[in-house]
Amino acid sequence: MQDDRKSEIGSSTALNETRRRLLRGAALAGGTVAAASSLGLPRITAAQQGELRPRQVPIAGKLDVPSKTSHWYVPASDKTVHWGYFSKGLQAAIEIRPGDYVTVECLTHQASDDYDRMIKGDPGAESVYYWTKDRKNVNRRGAGPLDAPNGAGAGAGVHILTGPILVSGAEPGDILEVRILDMYPRPCANPQYRGKAFGTNIAAWWGYQYHDLVEEPKPREVITIYELDAAGNRDWAKPIYNYRWVPLTDPNGVVHKIYDYPGLVVDHNNVQENHGILKNVRVPIRPHFGVIGLAPKEADMVNSIPPSYTGGNMDDWRVGKGATLYYPVSVEGALLSAGDTHAAQGDSELCGTAIESSWTGVFQILLHKKNDLEGTILAHLNWPLLETKDEWVVHGFSFPDYLGQLGPNAQEEIFNKSSVDLAMRDAYRKIRDFLMHARNLSEDEAISLISVAVDFGVTQVVDGNWGMHATIKKAVFAGEIV
Amino acid sequence: MQDDRKSEIGSSTALNETRRRLLRGAALAGGTVAAASSLGLPRITAAQQGELRPRQVPIAGKLDVPSKTSHWYVPASDKTVHWGYFSKGLQAAIEIRPGDYVTVECLTHQASDDYDRMIKGDPGAESVYYWTKDRKNVNRRGAGPLDAPNGAGAGAGVHILTGPILVSGAEPGDILEVRILDMYPRPCANPQYRGKAFGTNIAAWWGYQYHDLVEEPKPREVITIYELDAAGNRDWAKPIYNYRWVPLTDPNGVVHKIYDYPGLVVDHNNVQENHGILKNVRVPIRPHFGVIGLAPKEADMVNSIPPSYTGGNMDDWRVGKGATLYYPVSVEGALLSAGDTHAAQGDSELCGTAIESSWTGVFQILLHKKNDLEGTILAHLNWPLLETKDEWVVHGFSFPDYLGQLGPNAQEEIFNKSSVDLAMRDAYRKIRDFLMHARNLSEDEAISLISVAVDFGVTQVVDGNWGMHATIKKAVFAGEIV
Repeated sequence: MQDDRKSEIGSSTALNETRRRLLRGAALAGGTVAAASSLGLPRITAAQQGELRPRQVPIAGKLDVPSKTSHWYVPASDKTVHWGYFSKGLQAAIEIRPGDYVTVECLTHQASDDYDRMIKGDPGAESVYYWTKDRKNVNRRGAGPLDAPNGAGAGAGVHILTGPILVSGAEPGDILEVRILDMYPRPCANPQYRGKAFGTNIAAWWGYQYHDLVEEPKPREVITIYELDAAGNRDWAKPIYNYRWVPLTDPNGVVHKIYDYPGLVVDHNNVQENHGILKNVRVPIRPHFGVIGLAPKEADMVNSIPPSYTGGNMDDWRVGKGATLYYPVSVEGALLSAGDTHAAQGDSELCGTAIESSWTGVFQILLHKKNDLEGTILAHLNWPLLETKDEWVVHGFSFPDYLGQLGPNAQEEIFNKSSVDLAMRDAYRKIRDFLMHARNLSEDEAISLISVAVDFGVTQVVDGNWGMHATIKKAVFAGEIV
Repeated sequence: MQDDRKSEIGSSTALNETRRRLLRGAALAGGTVAAASSLGLPRITAAQQGELRPRQVPIAGKLDVPSKTSHWYVPASDKTVHWGYFSKGLQAAIEIRPGDYVTVECLTHQASDDYDRMIKGDPGAESVYYWTKDRKNVNRRGAGPLDAPNGAGAGAGVHILTGPILVSGAEPGDILEVRILDMYPRPCANPQYRGKAFGTNIAAWWGYQYHDLVEEPKPREVITIYELDAAGNRDWAKPIYNYRWVPLTDPNGVVHKIYDYPGLVVDHNNVQENHGILKNVRVPIRPHFGVIGLAPKEADMVNSIPPSYTGGNMDDWRVGKGATLYYPVSVEGALLSAGDTHAAQGDSELCGTAIESSWTGVFQILLHKKNDLEGTILAHLNWPLLETKDEWVVHGFSFPDYLGQLGPNAQEEIFNKSSVDLAMRDAYRKIRDFLMHARNLSEDEAISLISVAVDFGVTQVVDGNWGMHATIKKAVFAGEIV
């Protein structure tokens, strides 16, 4: 069965079709993704969740897809998330086959900034955040030691990740294609805020601004709460209030002078809420997955913060509905996890976070076998490629494979070597190589085209392994299909 | 007369109106610029040029502007350009009054890459490029010594700049507003290429790629010629051919092994033209001024390559039709010059140049007096602010005022200190301060807004003083006007 599936997906006919699509650019590729999305996979709402167990769910009746294709549902709960790390050793939350659809609930790891608005009444979120003196449902938060002074896992990695999703037949060297068909906000479950959803932004100690402030007190951490429309009818977020972080004592008695461990429930009796801030400001929303990626082979426990060749915490706002990601598979089964959903982020995510908010994603997962890549746009791909309706986006990092490059202490070292300059160098090399391989250009052709038609932007300056993306419009190649 | 004009422009009524416009954002500001543009200042074509002398020209009959407002025309010729430098000591090409319109012809400094397509038959261009053993019409090219081994001025600065334009009444501390009302290509004057215009891109020794190549021979410089539609009906540029630079002997007998001096006329019998490159590629055009800025006070002769607080070679493709620039005035009369027009450029201008191409600009120049700035969006502005229809754009540099910061050897030192990381830091501080001053936000508000709504991109990595821009959409503030 699994071999049938592999040969079905990996057949040269299918790959040639994929190659045609990929090489022909905008119109065809966008069309394909839009078509799958508009087939109408049902959105699973809280009321339909029932038990918080990964399982197969119906595909909408009208879906014109092969009967072998399944739709899976992975709700977020203390049983389906791993907090703050990727690991090749994790047991899969669910196993799917290439071609399948998956609905994945993601929870923001900062929901406890305002428990009433982002956790209360939500069984999934409550199960993940549950932490009393006697019980902590998700003990490990981060890739650090379990006996770390600030908490199990040391907060060396902070994101609540749902998964991993095991893709049967995926092997190192293959390319995993993840199509983001849909994305919708997780409504607030507290009746007090019916019809709303919320997000939170922290200007944190790991932010770019922390030691470069003009107003007192310096330094400081500030949390800003934003309101969203749960129905998705409004395309902007509204700032509600902010407060400054004050030392917080967790249920185990540890005092957190700074925001150094995820999931600390803020007691709003202890903070000063400032309402009426950012008056009349409307932040255009750009819903996306801050973290979506595969388990890397280089280490058993990998801090979720630095992005790498297997994706992860890329924090690119273009990774939203309608986009497709192509990842090099590093370990058997690929082991895809997602989380860190954002309602909006600027290129740089300057203060350390976006509008951190819980959303649900609907993906279709495809597999391209390594022996069939040559001659396609996916050959030689050893980094995460992003395709949107109109653009190809290449992601450069300060260190493209920091786990492989920086030795046994890579996971600490990377935070001492953050650099936009290094990320720019990597982005240049990647876009050059992409144009040479994928479009069959000489280096001279590729370099001229980069200078006149490729835009370099700062993805993020807050994730240790800083990012720079290079974007080229598909329309540049429109001459090929007229 | 001059004082009348000053009080007219600088009156508190006018400034309050300006402030309202600036604070209210997109709709009003865009509307103002568009209105001026659609009033129909006539485009001056080559056939109408007549003598190559700056002079007053008619305003179209229907222009509903005060009769005191004039329209000036500065054709490009060996008498109206300065090549490769800014200087507070230059005699003005023309003197205008605030409120006036100016049509300014700009010539690309790389037209000699293909003399037949970009110079031949064009009296203005021919006069600027004229260089024989016995006569060189524009001798100084760059801010270097006149007896430099590679040529007068040393090529320490390369851009052909038209101007300067003296704005009567402008004083240090004022803000000069330059509205770009129109921009149109300079048609090829060679009958062989009727109806076309051309541009050239060089992957140069100062480019980001020069010491980071994969194909042989390494290193190398490559020129790529692009074709444009002279009528402006086609919104993309077509790659025509490329060739590699070979040593070139100039009329004075100096051999140029690399592209180390501007205006060297390439003998196409000595180079290998490769046609059929970048097949079917269409480069979306983004016409803009690579260089537009004011003379700085810090030095007498200033290399045109590094941008600074007075603008200059910012190389931001957003500086095109419909955009408005606000500059701090550094010297009496402001002394505005423009040139280095580009048909297209990506964010980074990676290989050292854009599609370098000759265009004509139509500007309206306004003056905001220093005593009237407080309380407006222009207060505390000590760097070039860009306004487009939809965005505010702040420009950060590796060194925001490199002439003032780097000491007596600043003009050499800056090329040893290029850094995107430094430019990112400067862009962060500028956008933070802009939001705090112009929108009256607290630092906490500004920083959260930057993180969720401001995009940081690489302006250029090739001008010594590397650039990073920060962009915020006016729509963010749309709540204020509903």
